[in-house]
Amino acid sequence: MTKDVAEEGSFSAKDYHDPPPAKFIDPKELTRWAFYRALIAEFVATLLFLYITVLTVIGYKSQIDKGSDACGGVGVLGIAWAFGGMIFVLVYCTAGISGGHINPAVTFGLFLARKVSLPRAIMYMVAQCLGAICGVGLVKAFHKTYYTNYGGGANELADGYSKGTGLGAEIIGTFVLVYTVFSATDPKRNARDSHVPVLAPLPIGFAVFMVHLATIPITGTGINPARSFGAAVIYNKEKAWDDQWIFWVGPFIGAAIAAFYHQFILRAGAAKALGSFRSSGHV
Amino acid sequence: MTKDVAEEGSFSAKDYHDPPPAKFIDPKELTRWAFYRALIAEFVATLLFLYITVLTVIGYKSQIDKGSDACGGVGVLGIAWAFGGMIFVLVYCTAGISGGHINPAVTFGLFLARKVSLPRAIMYMVAQCLGAICGVGLVKAFHKTYYTNYGGGANELADGYSKGTGLGAEIIGTFVLVYTVFSATDPKRNARDSHVPVLAPLPIGFAVFMVHLATIPITGTGINPARSFGAAVIYNKEKAWDDQWIFWVGPFIGAAIAAFYHQFILRAGAAKALGSFRSSGHV
Amino acid sequence: MTKDVAEEGSFSAKDYHDPPPAKFIDPKELTRWAFYRALIAEFVATLLFLYITVLTVIGYKSQIDKGSDACGGVGVLGIAWAFGGMIFVLVYCTAGISGGHINPAVTFGLFLARKVSLPRAIMYMVAQCLGAICGVGLVKAFHKTYYTNYGGGANELADGYSKGTGLGAEIIGTFVLVYTVFSATDPKRNARDSHVPVLAPLPIGFAVFMVHLATIPITGTGINPARSFGAAVIYNKEKAWDDQWIFWVGPFIGAAIAAFYHQFILRAGAAKALGSFRSSGHV
Amino acid sequence: MTKDVAEEGSFSAKDYHDPPPAKFIDPKELTRWAFYRALIAEFVATLLFLYITVLTVIGYKSQIDKGSDACGGVGVLGIAWAFGGMIFVLVYCTAGISGGHINPAVTFGLFLARKVSLPRAIMYMVAQCLGAICGVGLVKAFHKTYYTNYGGGANELADGYSKGTGLGAEIIGTFVLVYTVFSATDPKRNARDSHVPVLAPLPIGFAVFMVHLATIPITGTGINPARSFGAAVIYNKEKAWDDQWIFWVGPFIGAAIAAFYHQFILRAGAAKALGSFRSSGHV
Repeated sequence: MTKDVAEEGSFSAKDYHDPPPAKFIDPKELTRWAFYRALIAEFVATLLFLYITVLTVIGYKSQIDKGSDACGGVGVLGIAWAFGGMIFVLVYCTAGISGGHINPAVTFGLFLARKVSLPRAIMYMVAQCLGAICGVGLVKAFHKTYYTNYGGGANELADGYSKGTGLGAEIIGTFVLVYTVFSATDPKRNARDSHVPVLAPLPIGFAVFMVHLATIPITGTGINPARSFGAAVIYNKEKAWDDQWIFWVGPFIGAAIAAFYHQFILRAGAAKALGSFRSSGHV
Repeated sequence: MTKDVAEEGSFSAKDYHDPPPAKFIDPKELTRWAFYRALIAEFVATLLFLYITVLTVIGYKSQIDKGSDACGGVGVLGIAWAFGGMIFVLVYCTAGISGGHINPAVTFGLFLARKVSLPRAIMYMVAQCLGAICGVGLVKAFHKTYYTNYGGGANELADGYSKGTGLGAEIIGTFVLVYTVFSATDPKRNARDSHVPVLAPLPIGFAVFMVHLATIPITGTGINPARSFGAAVIYNKEKAWDDQWIFWVGPFIGAAIAAFYHQFILRAGAAKALGSFRSSGHV
Repeated sequence: MTKDVAEEGSFSAKDYHDPPPAKFIDPKELTRWAFYRALIAEFVATLLFLYITVLTVIGYKSQIDKGSDACGGVGVLGIAWAFGGMIFVLVYCTAGISGGHINPAVTFGLFLARKVSLPRAIMYMVAQCLGAICGVGLVKAFHKTYYTNYGGGANELADGYSKGTGLGAEIIGTFVLVYTVFSATDPKRNARDSHVPVLAPLPIGFAVFMVHLATIPITGTGINPARSFGAAVIYNKEKAWDDQWIFWVGPFIGAAIAAFYHQFILRAGAAKALGSFRSSGHV
Repeated sequence: MTKDVAEEGSFSAKDYHDPPPAKFIDPKELTRWAFYRALIAEFVATLLFLYITVLTVIGYKSQIDKGSDACGGVGVLGIAWAFGGMIFVLVYCTAGISGGHINPAVTFGLFLARKVSLPRAIMYMVAQCLGAICGVGLVKAFHKTYYTNYGGGANELADGYSKGTGLGAEIIGTFVLVYTVFSATDPKRNARDSHVPVLAPLPIGFAVFMVHLATIPITGTGINPARSFGAAVIYNKEKAWDDQWIFWVGPFIGAAIAAFYHQFILRAGAAKALGSFRSSGHV
C-alpha cells in the first residue's frame, strides 16, 4: 500500500523490461502449431464459459418456476458467481496456452496496446464467437423448451432503461474488466512479483463477478461480445438482435479507454510527455 | 495473458522437465507405507467430502420445510459452495499425501495420462467409494428420517430431462473439472511458477462449484462416481440405482476427453505429430 | 500458526528493515508525475467503487420491487460481496500506483503511522471524495427515479438504533479494515514473504465484506467517509446529511485506534517502552 | 496432484526440518513481551470474531422479521460466510503475532502436537474466552432487545436431534478445521513452498465456512468453545448452559483426533513404527 515511495525513481533505473510491441502482422506466427493450439484453446474455453453460465441462468429460472419454493434456485447472486468464477477458472487454465482472453473486448484492448498482432486478434475473435455459439447451442439442446421460455440467456436492455444507459453500463463494465486485465499482466508488476501470472486470474474473475452484480438488472451484463453474440444467434429473437450493437460498441469503447488509461496515464506514456516537468532537477 | 509470445520457442529449448510416465504396474510401490498412507488419506478425505456436502443438502431441505421462513436455509448456492469449497479444502490438505484425487474420475484421468499406476488407480477408487459410503452413512445416522424424506443426497435425473441430456451434462461437467486438474498440475507450469501446487486447489474447487451451479437442476450434479455411488448405497432407492450408470459412464468419458485434450492438443503430442509442418524452417 | 517461536528473538536480530517514516511535508513530492498519477488512480478507483456498489444496491431494490419473484435480486449478501469484492479488485489494481487506499479512513490511518505525508494524505482524500461523487452521480444518471426511490445508496442510521450504536459500529468496523491493512502491509511480513503485496488485497477485501455482513442492518455500513459523502451529495436528503458526521468521526476514530494498536502494541513500540523488562537478562 | 512419486523417498533424505517440540513448561517464555503481545492479539481477534459474526446473526434475524421482504437479510449462507471469512481475515492478521489460533480447540490440538507449551495453551484459552465474552457483550449493547429475542447467537441443540448427534457433529466439524490447520502449517510443506504461511489462512477460513453450511441446522455450529462460551455467558439462558458441555467436549475430542491423525498417520509416526516393514530392502 505504500509502494509509491520506492517506485518514484523507477523511470530512471527500471527494474523491469517492457517486451517489444507485437508486430502488426507477423507472417511467421501463422506457420506455428502454437498459434492454432491457442485458437483451439480459445474456442474450447469460450464454449465452456457459455455452456456453464447460460445453463445456470436457464436452470435457475426453470427451478423457481417449477416448485413452490421461491428460493429454489441459485439466485441472481449465483448467476453472477457463475460468470465470474468461470472466467477465473478458464483464465487460469488457458493463460499459458493462448493468454486466456475468452472475450473479444479483451483481445481488442490487448491489440490496441500492441500485445497481440492483428491476425491473431481477428482469429481469436472468430474462435471466441464460434465457441460461444456452440456453448449456447449445447444449452438449447439440453434444455429444449425451457431454453426459449426463459430468455435464452440473451443480453437485452431491460424495460425502463434508455439505449444510452445500456451503452454506458457496458462501457464502464468493460473498462473495469480490461483495466484489471492490464493491471494483472503489467510487466512492471511481473518483474517485482514473479508469480503474478498465477494469481492474476482471481482478481480478473472477481472483476467479472462484480460487474454482473451491478448491471444484470440493466442489460443482463454483456461486457463480452462473444457471449452476447453466441446467445443472440441461438436464441434468435428480434429484441436480442436489435440491442446487439450495444454489446459490441460498448465493450470495444470500454476496452479502448482502459488501454488508453493504462498505457498513457498509469504507465510511462504521459510521464514521458511531461519529461521536461520531471527533468527540471528533481529526480 | 500474453505469455504466448515468450512461449513459442519452448519446444526447442524446454525449460521444464516431464516426469517419466508412471509404470503401468509397479510392485515396489505396494510395499511402501506412503502407498497405504495415501489410501487412508483418500478414504478420509472422501468421507469428509460426502459428510459435509450431503449434510448441507439435507439440512437445507429440512430447514425450509420446518419454518415459515421460505429462505431459511443456505440455498442451492450454499449447496454448490459446499461441494466446491470442500474440494478446495481437501485437495489442499491431501495434495502432498495422495495427490488429492477424492474422485474416481480424476484418478481415471490421471491414470490415462500415465500419472498413476494401475494398482494405485484401482485401490484409490476402492478407498474413495468406501469413504463415500461411510460419509453418507454418518449423515443418515445424524438426520435419520429427514435423510430419506429429503432425497438422501442421491444423484437422480430430474423430471423432463432425457438420459442423453443427463449423460451429456455429466460428461461436460467432468471435462471442466479434469481439464482444470490437468492445467493446474502441468509440469510445464510448475517449472515457471514454482508454487503452483499450493495455489492449484483454489481453481479446482471453483471448477466444482461452477459445475454444480449449472447442473444441479438436471442431475443434482455427480461428476464424481464415488459421491454418486456412496449416496446410492445408503439411500438405496430404485430410481437412484437405475440412473447410477450415468454417474459412472459420464464422468469417465469426460475425464478421458480431458486427458486426451490436455495431452494431445495442448501439450506436445499434436505438435510432434505435425513435426514436418513445424520443421520446415520456421523455428 | 506457530511462528511465534521463531519470532521471539526478532527484536535483537531483525530480518527486516523499517522504511523511514514519510516526511511530514515533502515539497519534492509535489513536483513528480508519480504524485499526480496516484491522485488520478485514487479518483478513478473510488469512482468505480461507488459506481459498481451503489448500482448493485439500487438494482437489487428495483428488481425485488418489480417482479413477483421476492428473491429476484442479488440479496444483501450480494451487496456485501459488491463492496468487498470491488475493494479486492481495486486495491489489487492500484496498489502499485497509489498504494490503493480508496478510502479517507485508510489514508488517515497510514498518515498517523507516518506512511504518507500530510499533503499526500489531504490530496488523496480530496481525490477520493470527488471520485465518489462522480461514481454515485453516474448511478443517478443511469437509474433516474429508481435512484431516489430506493434510498440513493446513502448511509443512514436505521430506525431503532441510537447515534452511539451507529458510531460504535462504524468505529469497530473501520478498526477491522485498517487493522487488516496494517497487517497486510507490515514490512516485517514483507521481509519474510516477498510476495505479500500481491496477496494482501484478498484479506483486505474480505474484511470489507465481513463488516458489511454485520453492520448493513445498523448503518448501511460506511467505514469509508468518501463513500458516505459521495452518496449524501448526490442523494441530498436531510436525514443523510444529519447522520453524515457519524460516517466521518467513526471511521477516523477506528483508523486511529488501529494505527495505535498496530504500531504500539503489535510492533516494537510497546516492547521498547518495556525495554527494561526485556533486557533483564532473558534474551 | 502427483507429488507422491517424488515424495516417496523423503524419509531417507529429508528436505525439511521439524522444529523441536515446544517445552512442556518454558519459564523464560513468560518473561517476554512477545508472549503478552500474543495474548493481547488473541483477545482482540476473538473479540472481533464474535462481534462481527454474532452481529451478522442477530442483524439477519431482525431484518427478515421487520420487513415484508423474506429475503431481506444475508441468509444462512451469509452467516456461514461471516464465520469463515472472519477466520480467514483474523488468522491472516494474527498468524505472525500469536499463531492465529482464535479457538481453544485449535490451541488444544497444537498443544497435543507439542507446538505450544502448557502455560501458553492455558493463557491463550483464557484470552480467547474473555475476548469472546466482550465481543458478544458489544453485540448485546448494540442490539439490546433484538439480541435476546433472536437467540443471542448462542449454540443450542436444535429440536429433533439427540445429544449424541450434536456431539458427533461437533467432533467431525472440529476435526475438519484442525486437520486443515495441521495441513496448512506442516513444516514439510513449508520447506517445499516457502510462502505457505501466507496462503494458509484461506483454506482454514474455508474449512470453517464449510462446517457452518453443514451443521448450522443441527447445533448452530460451535467448533470453537470460546465462541459457544462467550455467547452463553452473555445470553445466559438455561438451554444454552445445559448444552454447553457439547461445545467443549466435542471440539476437544475432534482436535485430539485430528492431532493424532496428522502426527501418527500422515506424518512419520506410523511410518517409523512400521520401520521394519520399510527397511526390508525396498527403499
